[in-house]
Amino acid sequence: MLPGPARLFRPALYCVILLLSLAALISAQEADEPAPKTGTAEARFGVTFEPVQFMPPPVHRSTFENGITFYHRPERTIPLVTVLVGIRAGSVNDPPGKVGLASLTAEVLRTGGSAALDGDALDVALESRGAQLSAESDEEMTWIRLSVLPEDAEWGLGVLRDLLTAPAFPQPRLEEAASRFAVALRQRLDVPMNVAQALFPQLVYGKGNPWGWTATEATLAAITPADLHAFHERFYTAGNLRAAVIGDLDREEAERLMRSTLGQLPAEPAPEIDLPAVEPVQSSRVYIVPRDVTQNVIYFGHEGIGRFDERKFAAKVLNSVLAGGFTSRLFKEVRSNRGLAYSVFGRLGEGTVAGLYFNVAMTRVEATSETLGLMLDINEALTQAPPSAEETQLAIQSDVNAFVFFFDTSEQIVRQAMILDEFGYPEDYLETYVDRLKGVESEQVRQAAAANLHLDRLVVLIVGKVDEDFRRELERIGPITEISDEELRAEWL
Amino acid sequence: MLPGPARLFRPALYCVILLLSLAALISAQEADEPAPKTGTAEARFGVTFEPVQFMPPPVHRSTFENGITFYHRPERTIPLVTVLVGIRAGSVNDPPGKVGLASLTAEVLRTGGSAALDGDALDVALESRGAQLSAESDEEMTWIRLSVLPEDAEWGLGVLRDLLTAPAFPQPRLEEAASRFAVALRQRLDVPMNVAQALFPQLVYGKGNPWGWTATEATLAAITPADLHAFHERFYTAGNLRAAVIGDLDREEAERLMRSTLGQLPAEPAPEIDLPAVEPVQSSRVYIVPRDVTQNVIYFGHEGIGRFDERKFAAKVLNSVLAGGFTSRLFKEVRSNRGLAYSVFGRLGEGTVAGLYFNVAMTRVEATSETLGLMLDINEALTQAPPSAEETQLAIQSDVNAFVFFFDTSEQIVRQAMILDEFGYPEDYLETYVDRLKGVESEQVRQAAAANLHLDRLVVLIVGKVDEDFRRELERIGPITEISDEELRAEWL
Repeated sequence: MLPGPARLFRPALYCVILLLSLAALISAQEADEPAPKTGTAEARFGVTFEPVQFMPPPVHRSTFENGITFYHRPERTIPLVTVLVGIRAGSVNDPPGKVGLASLTAEVLRTGGSAALDGDALDVALESRGAQLSAESDEEMTWIRLSVLPEDAEWGLGVLRDLLTAPAFPQPRLEEAASRFAVALRQRLDVPMNVAQALFPQLVYGKGNPWGWTATEATLAAITPADLHAFHERFYTAGNLRAAVIGDLDREEAERLMRSTLGQLPAEPAPEIDLPAVEPVQSSRVYIVPRDVTQNVIYFGHEGIGRFDERKFAAKVLNSVLAGGFTSRLFKEVRSNRGLAYSVFGRLGEGTVAGLYFNVAMTRVEATSETLGLMLDINEALTQAPPSAEETQLAIQSDVNAFVFFFDTSEQIVRQAMILDEFGYPEDYLETYVDRLKGVESEQVRQAAAANLHLDRLVVLIVGKVDEDFRRELERIGPITEISDEELRAEWL
Repeated sequence: MLPGPARLFRPALYCVILLLSLAALISAQEADEPAPKTGTAEARFGVTFEPVQFMPPPVHRSTFENGITFYHRPERTIPLVTVLVGIRAGSVNDPPGKVGLASLTAEVLRTGGSAALDGDALDVALESRGAQLSAESDEEMTWIRLSVLPEDAEWGLGVLRDLLTAPAFPQPRLEEAASRFAVALRQRLDVPMNVAQALFPQLVYGKGNPWGWTATEATLAAITPADLHAFHERFYTAGNLRAAVIGDLDREEAERLMRSTLGQLPAEPAPEIDLPAVEPVQSSRVYIVPRDVTQNVIYFGHEGIGRFDERKFAAKVLNSVLAGGFTSRLFKEVRSNRGLAYSVFGRLGEGTVAGLYFNVAMTRVEATSETLGLMLDINEALTQAPPSAEETQLAIQSDVNAFVFFFDTSEQIVRQAMILDEFGYPEDYLETYVDRLKGVESEQVRQAAAANLHLDRLVVLIVGKVDEDFRRELERIGPITEISDEELRAEWL
């Protein structure tokens, strides 16, 4: 029953991935991809890395009269069909005081069934067919995913139509989902890294800003079936919906089935979505959540960059140099060379409005000051001097060669297409991606760092133990606010 | 930043999966698949579920002169090649006092590099190519996985050959891996469910039995580079090794590359592996780990069944009736109808020697007694009376229709083949799987339950709060042993 280190750490890696918003999905995936560094690889191995010529496979798209965009990609390996529905609705659309509504709407849509088929009956029907149906929502998107045998595709699409048209949202299933969610929130309080992950965005964006907020037991308890119906009515509209068929169904058949089911939803335009603005962090400030632990969590950063920022590709290379892989500056300096932290990562994140720039480490209490100082220096250095030409080239080659990994299943290929369309990426985004990366020069990396990493106006968060010496050092960064566990529970998490 | 319930709960589901040994992988996956119940679906929906005719796609196999079995399956979607190496070595082969050795050997093989290419250089080389390499070990198997562009396949296989032939296992990388592992072990102590998962198998199999043991900080600290070398020398031999190429390489090229790399490893037979015996639990006993929590964890069960037990297929249907899906008896009674637990599952697990039979729930402190009683009743009822013909048929249809999901990627198809071969499944196992499932009758399900669920000789574990009334009830089950947190840390975890 021994879990190997790699497996034990998957949950941690998973948390890292959660940190990165869905809105920045394409970037987020890169955060887990390998990246380059140190500029000596060619010298050491005598190898010239020839970036691969790879163009993502095509995805068919068409739009139905009712506004739904339909995607198709055949995949004949085995007799399975996946239907993927993407709806532009997420936690950023939650009303104040009811944070968690988007998530609960997705969850209870699935578990509560429709007017025609209640939740229990739906469970039986799905399980009898060996079919899988799930729904979940993220910061800006809700995804419903159905996996069925080809002969059950028509039935499954009928179920999806019913769920999307007339979900039941019964009170007991809402309570069940909310309670399950609340248990997880309580567990979050036990894990310093999870506390930091939930708290840090609120400290950066401001407490009332939807980009940073997080559900609490109170906001969950405030949500009623009427709220689910209202959220559903507003966002689950044909014009706000993309639907894909991937797998063992040819285009004609897939389109016919889709047209006769989701294609029949009433034509309604996408709702107006007012994306909340993000106020840049103005001056440095420090937050401490005191905890009696052996490992402190360090977080620092501020708002990030927009997804269409002109420095986007330079920022991708910057991210690889900063924290892209085992040989990135953060990993190499903080982890490998000095052994200060076993977990260290960072990112200048992209977002629909601003994204989040953050650096994170988990380190022993005594080493917290040294680790924080070193991480600040590493970030500062990137704003001062460009990486060497070799470092930049290795970062680029790594990113270019990792590009193909974004497309390693048909489902992923289609999902990427849906996201790019939803967020309005230019049509030639994927075709020009590699060339734009290759065009980044060292000085542009420095400029991206100088323009986006502001070490003089940081939010710094420590969850853990802070002694007097370290507190005096933190005071030099900015005014300190302590958040007790009671305040954390009452006001934040 | 709101994590949806589904996402928050993935780590929990993941823990469920961890519980099931790799040795029982094929069964383990079924535990996550949907399943049937209640016998009313056909009546309610007027549908006849016609099980699909599906035969798993073929996998090419051949054996090299040095004893390595080579697998190949082409997959042309995108230009990527995955190399999967499976080695029969896992925690069950760890020496006493050095639990964690199999895992650390895998981890440090990857991070420490080889004589020719040290760990740092390997990181740079991999990252420059956008390649991914990981190694991890489980209860009985070690898996090394490499993902590269086709033009890097030869280079990557060369690296694998070097790692398998002459791993460096440097002290600093061992220390780094062990420390990271130790941090995770410390975090395990904070989460009652994780404590229960690590403790329960030890209570069932006996403290010194490798099938149940778990690494501790002490066993990790006892492991030296010499141990890694010895473990590697004993188990990482050609005759103990399977190697697969999946992806964008045709058979001739894949076989040529494999032959000139791993095919050149010295011919050595597989080591003798003495699998530890499992002593059946003799009489009921109760263990309590007192914790000040709001949610108690309940675990009960004893040893499970062998992977080639003649009642295996009846046991699969039993598992679906007991806990296969949302409408299984445990879910329906404990979770949906009475709302006693949000997390409840169970399984008569298969193992190479004995596997593990377990039932688990997480419930509020006040409801622990009622929940435990109900779960015991549900299990007992299955040993007394057969499920109705409809319940059995729905369970079978669900299992049959879910069969195809075991094969939904080429990598999964190949991995299944490697596992079936490694553990000596009959050649016609997959071809006859569906028919053997379909042949199970209700009375055979009852017989499998009666033969394998012994409610009169259970290990019962409660992690949480036990009041006087509940303690008196537990005393009626068997003698109670309390394990304090200090004892837990010192002797168990």
